[in-house]
Amino acid sequence: MYSINVRHHFMVAHSFQGEVFGPAQRLHGATYVVDLEMRRAELDGDGIVVDIGLATQVLHTVLGELNFRNLDEESAFEGRNTTTEFLARVIFNRVAARIAAGELGQSAQGMSCLKVTLHESHVAWAAYEGALPACATV
Amino acid sequence: MYSINVRHHFMVAHSFQGEVFGPAQRLHGATYVVDLEMRRAELDGDGIVVDIGLATQVLHTVLGELNFRNLDEESAFEGRNTTTEFLARVIFNRVAARIAAGELGQSAQGMSCLKVTLHESHVAWAAYEGALPACATV
Amino acid sequence: MYSINVRHHFMVAHSFQGEVFGPAQRLHGATYVVDLEMRRAELDGDGIVVDIGLATQVLHTVLGELNFRNLDEESAFEGRNTTTEFLARVIFNRVAARIAAGELGQSAQGMSCLKVTLHESHVAWAAYEGALPACATV
Amino acid sequence: MYSINVRHHFMVAHSFQGEVFGPAQRLHGATYVVDLEMRRAELDGDGIVVDIGLATQVLHTVLGELNFRNLDEESAFEGRNTTTEFLARVIFNRVAARIAAGELGQSAQGMSCLKVTLHESHVAWAAYEGALPACATV
Amino acid sequence: MYSINVRHHFMVAHSFQGEVFGPAQRLHGATYVVDLEMRRAELDGDGIVVDIGLATQVLHTVLGELNFRNLDEESAFEGRNTTTEFLARVIFNRVAARIAAGELGQSAQGMSCLKVTLHESHVAWAAYEGALPACATV
Amino acid sequence: MYSINVRHHFMVAHSFQGEVFGPAQRLHGATYVVDLEMRRAELDGDGIVVDIGLATQVLHTVLGELNFRNLDEESAFEGRNTTTEFLARVIFNRVAARIAAGELGQSAQGMSCLKVTLHESHVAWAAYEGALPACATV
Repeated sequence: MYSINVRHHFMVAHSFQGEVFGPAQRLHGATYVVDLEMRRAELDGDGIVVDIGLATQVLHTVLGELNFRNLDEESAFEGRNTTTEFLARVIFNRVAARIAAGELGQSAQGMSCLKVTLHESHVAWAAYEGALPACATV
Repeated sequence: MYSINVRHHFMVAHSFQGEVFGPAQRLHGATYVVDLEMRRAELDGDGIVVDIGLATQVLHTVLGELNFRNLDEESAFEGRNTTTEFLARVIFNRVAARIAAGELGQSAQGMSCLKVTLHESHVAWAAYEGALPACATV
Repeated sequence: MYSINVRHHFMVAHSFQGEVFGPAQRLHGATYVVDLEMRRAELDGDGIVVDIGLATQVLHTVLGELNFRNLDEESAFEGRNTTTEFLARVIFNRVAARIAAGELGQSAQGMSCLKVTLHESHVAWAAYEGALPACATV
Repeated sequence: MYSINVRHHFMVAHSFQGEVFGPAQRLHGATYVVDLEMRRAELDGDGIVVDIGLATQVLHTVLGELNFRNLDEESAFEGRNTTTEFLARVIFNRVAARIAAGELGQSAQGMSCLKVTLHESHVAWAAYEGALPACATV
Repeated sequence: MYSINVRHHFMVAHSFQGEVFGPAQRLHGATYVVDLEMRRAELDGDGIVVDIGLATQVLHTVLGELNFRNLDEESAFEGRNTTTEFLARVIFNRVAARIAAGELGQSAQGMSCLKVTLHESHVAWAAYEGALPACATV
Repeated sequence: MYSINVRHHFMVAHSFQGEVFGPAQRLHGATYVVDLEMRRAELDGDGIVVDIGLATQVLHTVLGELNFRNLDEESAFEGRNTTTEFLARVIFNRVAARIAAGELGQSAQGMSCLKVTLHESHVAWAAYEGALPACATV
């Protein structure tokens, strides 16, 4: 199995609902350094997993939709705790949708799964990984 | 699959038995920077893998039992080489036992597996990962 | 010249005033991983720059006063942009005041300067460093 | 599952064929920081995954065959794009062959899989991982 | 003294002349992860050392002039060994010239010195730092 | 001012005397990841600060004298606390002596100062830096 990873970051404000969050129930914020890992069983005809330039561009676009925002005011996340784990899944879904839409090119259809990791500090991170069924069936 | 990771460290002395260890047969020591990764298929009702505060506390407790010690004198390790791999398994077992005992809370019962990584220098690390059957059956 | 460094982090929300900040004028947030470096010409009688346990405790206390907050609502920062550079200076001042108050112990009076670095992502950080005149005159 | 990892690096020149590579079609170069991860279900009699000294030596030997070279002039890679992904596979194959030849010792036959990661910058890396069938059948 | 740092990278091929370089006399290459640190005694009116967006842009532009090239064929470096140390100075000079030309804005004239660090692997880096006399006299 | 840095590590056991050390008074150990930084005003005739191969070799030799040992039993350190700060100075002195003895070559005589940093965990490190008078007077 081959994989490649590209990294970028975004910075947001948010607050959490629930006693389990303690002082993080107050409005605060985070820098998330994001790793987007893409995997496939065989390389494409150019000898790559995916065009790394396009992958970087898609990651920048997806993170740009979140960057420099207060997530408490984003209608897409209404009623949800925008935890690190939850945001990893949101970014996974948005990247997967762009792959399905062809934004990583035709050969990216060969990719079998993604992993999105959000580093929130030097001692904590969270991730979501899953298969790409839409792609797998193409 | 979701995952979160917390990091802490401990510092010990020890020596190894066996020619394969060369100069590491002498009494020496190590700093181990430890990553505890916890995975589950779905988030709990608060939108998290686990209460990160409790997870950090459990990791500190488990590492505190080893920290600032000479492992050659610990009865629990008598007759065993306390290699990095072996210590990763010890910490895995001790964290798993605390999860089974409910120290990470009720919702942590949804966790399916753990990975414990011990970084011993900038060029070497070891890990143990496995399923949490005790939890899975609850 | 000897130095030691301890690291901790804090997470805040804030916004900036001024066209130079572009989209960072919106309410957003950041994780700051903070390095506190302390320097002195000679070690104390125990062979250390400072009690690293006390230094860690002081850093945790100072960052705890900022952690999980919206800096736009802190009266101490009213009318100021809480940029990374500015916050480095704030933390420098607060740590220096605690050293002057004796919280790092008597031997810490031998310290000649501090450097506070705030890492805001994997590609950007800022710092403030300066002498400790209050200590130097003791 | 246990794993250990050793790290080393190599520095090469190369160029790529294909429009997808943009300016990387020009002769340029890279430092690759390489992680070699080895996994097995149970530790050997000494309590280790593998002799870390031998593993480091094998990694240095394999990378030494590539280091300080222009890969465009290596006959082994004629007609191929020596992408990061491709090089991860090359190193995987060469390490696997040395394991099969016994260079990591008899007990290394218990290893079930390898992962080779090549870090090409602070924001990008690629990897190849796979089972070790030759070993698995011994 | 305040400082800020921005990071980017570039990838080049080159070879060295001189027995001291051993196998690095052959055509090879490197990834250089570059830290550009800028210092000044007091913050400007916006509370910053410099517009980090402009600083990032200038660093990208300067590194873009070197990226994906064979430095042996660059007329600017004819007869010179493009060592890591030498390249750190080249980048220092080019950034300093752009600051003098006003590309970091008017308030950047308050900057007193720069440091350029080139990380060539996980175990080696080189840097050049110096004052900015052109700016200092403005 | 130019600088270059090389990195290596060593692993030791030791204990400390003095109440300030708390549980570190017990026999324990540490991995120290060591950065050796060398500075000079102008590059030598080859365009380098120093032969990086020789510098790496000297660092390996000096750390090899400490590696895999119990520092409590080293006569050189009798009656001293082998704190991180103290060990940074020991390594500084030993490297400086080897430079004075010519082990880094003739052109290394142009070096003006050294800095030795010992990383003891992901959250703490210590350093010693100073001028090289022996060299400066040659």
